[in-house]
Amino acid sequence: MINHGSAHISARLRKMHRDSLIFGPLQYLLMKFYQREISLPAFARGFHLITRHVENSLPEIKDITAGQLHVFIKHTSASLTINENADPTVRKDFESHFNEMVPEDAPYYRHNTEGSDDMPAHVKASILGSSLTVPITNGELNKGIWQGIYLCEHRNHGGSREIVITAFGI
Amino acid sequence: MINHGSAHISARLRKMHRDSLIFGPLQYLLMKFYQREISLPAFARGFHLITRHVENSLPEIKDITAGQLHVFIKHTSASLTINENADPTVRKDFESHFNEMVPEDAPYYRHNTEGSDDMPAHVKASILGSSLTVPITNGELNKGIWQGIYLCEHRNHGGSREIVITAFGI
Amino acid sequence: MINHGSAHISARLRKMHRDSLIFGPLQYLLMKFYQREISLPAFARGFHLITRHVENSLPEIKDITAGQLHVFIKHTSASLTINENADPTVRKDFESHFNEMVPEDAPYYRHNTEGSDDMPAHVKASILGSSLTVPITNGELNKGIWQGIYLCEHRNHGGSREIVITAFGI
Repeated sequence: MINHGSAHISARLRKMHRDSLIFGPLQYLLMKFYQREISLPAFARGFHLITRHVENSLPEIKDITAGQLHVFIKHTSASLTINENADPTVRKDFESHFNEMVPEDAPYYRHNTEGSDDMPAHVKASILGSSLTVPITNGELNKGIWQGIYLCEHRNHGGSREIVITAFGI
Repeated sequence: MINHGSAHISARLRKMHRDSLIFGPLQYLLMKFYQREISLPAFARGFHLITRHVENSLPEIKDITAGQLHVFIKHTSASLTINENADPTVRKDFESHFNEMVPEDAPYYRHNTEGSDDMPAHVKASILGSSLTVPITNGELNKGIWQGIYLCEHRNHGGSREIVITAFGI
Repeated sequence: MINHGSAHISARLRKMHRDSLIFGPLQYLLMKFYQREISLPAFARGFHLITRHVENSLPEIKDITAGQLHVFIKHTSASLTINENADPTVRKDFESHFNEMVPEDAPYYRHNTEGSDDMPAHVKASILGSSLTVPITNGELNKGIWQGIYLCEHRNHGGSREIVITAFGI
C-alpha cells in the first residue's frame, strides 16, 4: 500500500503546472513527522547564521516531498529570523539598528534588575519572533538563495540556547 | 475506506461545542497537502493587498475542513503581514511609519553599496516577517472580516517576488 | 492497525539520540487534527498572559506526541506574541516601549478618524504578528519555562477578541 502511495505521488508530481509546482490532492498519503530538540553553542550578542546547524540537525528533511520546517527557540531574550546570508555587514547593521530602536536604560523601563541588556532583549525577541516556518519542497528547504536562518542573541552573555526543530509533510 | 472517513467527519462535526467549533479527534483521517510556488507581479514600494492572489493560486483550500495556510516569501527585502483590508490610507501609513522607524542612510549602516533603500529593506523584512499562517475552517481562510494579506515591498524597484503557498489539513 | 501504529511509536521513541529527542520517520501513523475558535474576555490596553486560556481551550493537546500548536487572532488592532511569564513589569515595559516606538498622532498618519489609538494599533499588530506557533512534545507545549503566550491589546477599548486555536501532529 505504501508502494502504491509512492507511485501515486510520482504520477502527481509529473503533472506540473506552468511556472509553478503543485502537489495535491494527496489525501491518500500518510504524513511524515520529525522533531528534535538541540542546544546551540553559545553565541556573542548579535545576529548569527545557523542555517547549517538547523539543516544538519534534521537530515530527514530530505525524505519530505512537500512540507514545512518549523524552528522554535525556548527563550525570551533571543529570537529567530530569516535574512540575508552573504554579507556579514548586514548582520552587524541589524545589531546596530535594533540597539537604536530598542535602547538600553530607557527611562520608562521598570524591569531593570537583571542588567541593562535584559529588558531590551525581551522587546527585541518579540519584535523578531520566537519561531519561523520554511516550506520544504523535494527534500530541501524551499527558501530564496539569499535567505539564511539567523539566531538573534540579544543578551551580552546569553549562553547556550535550546531550539526545537520540527519537520512534517508528505 | 475514504467514504467511511468522510462519514466519520460529518458525525464529528455535528458534535459542536457551545460557542466554538471543534474538529477532532480525527486520527482516522488522512491528511491533505497542497503546495504551489507563484510569481507575484512587480509592486511599487509600499504595502499591497494580495489576499486574492493567494486564494486564487490555491483553490484547493476549499477541500480542507480544518487546516492551515502558510505563505512564504523567498526574499530578504520584502515581507508578508496581515492587516486592515479596507482603507488604503492604512497601507500608506504603514509605509510612512516604517520609513521613520527604520530610516535610510543611518550613520551606523555599513551595508550601503546597494542603495539607500537596501539595508532598511532587510531590517523591515525581519520586523514584519517572511511568512504568515492562517487557519483554514470549512474550506475557507478563517480570518477576521477586516484582515487581508499584505505584500510589503521595501525596495524602490523590487521587481517580481516569489512566494510559496502551502495548505494542509483534514 | 492503530494499535500496531502505537507499538511502532513506542519503539521509535525508545531510540533516543544523545541530548535530543527524535520522533520519526513515523510515516505509518495517521495525523491528529484539532481546531477550536474561542472568544477571549475583554482586556485593558496592554500585554496580558493568556497561556492558560489557550491550553484549557484545547485539552486534546495531551493526545499529541509530536506536533504543533497554532494560535491566530482574527483582528488587526491586537496581536499575539511569546515572552516572559513571571514578572508583570516586563509586560508594562512592553506597553511603554511600543508606545514610544509607534507613537499616537504622528504627523504622517492619514488614517486617523477612528481615534488616536487606532493607527498605532494596526502598526503594532503587524510588528508583533497575528499568530504564533509552538511545538508540542509528549502531550505538552514544548516551550521554555519562562515563556508565556501574550495577548497584546493595542486599543483603548478593544473588547472581546476572537482567536482560532489549532493543534495537529502524531
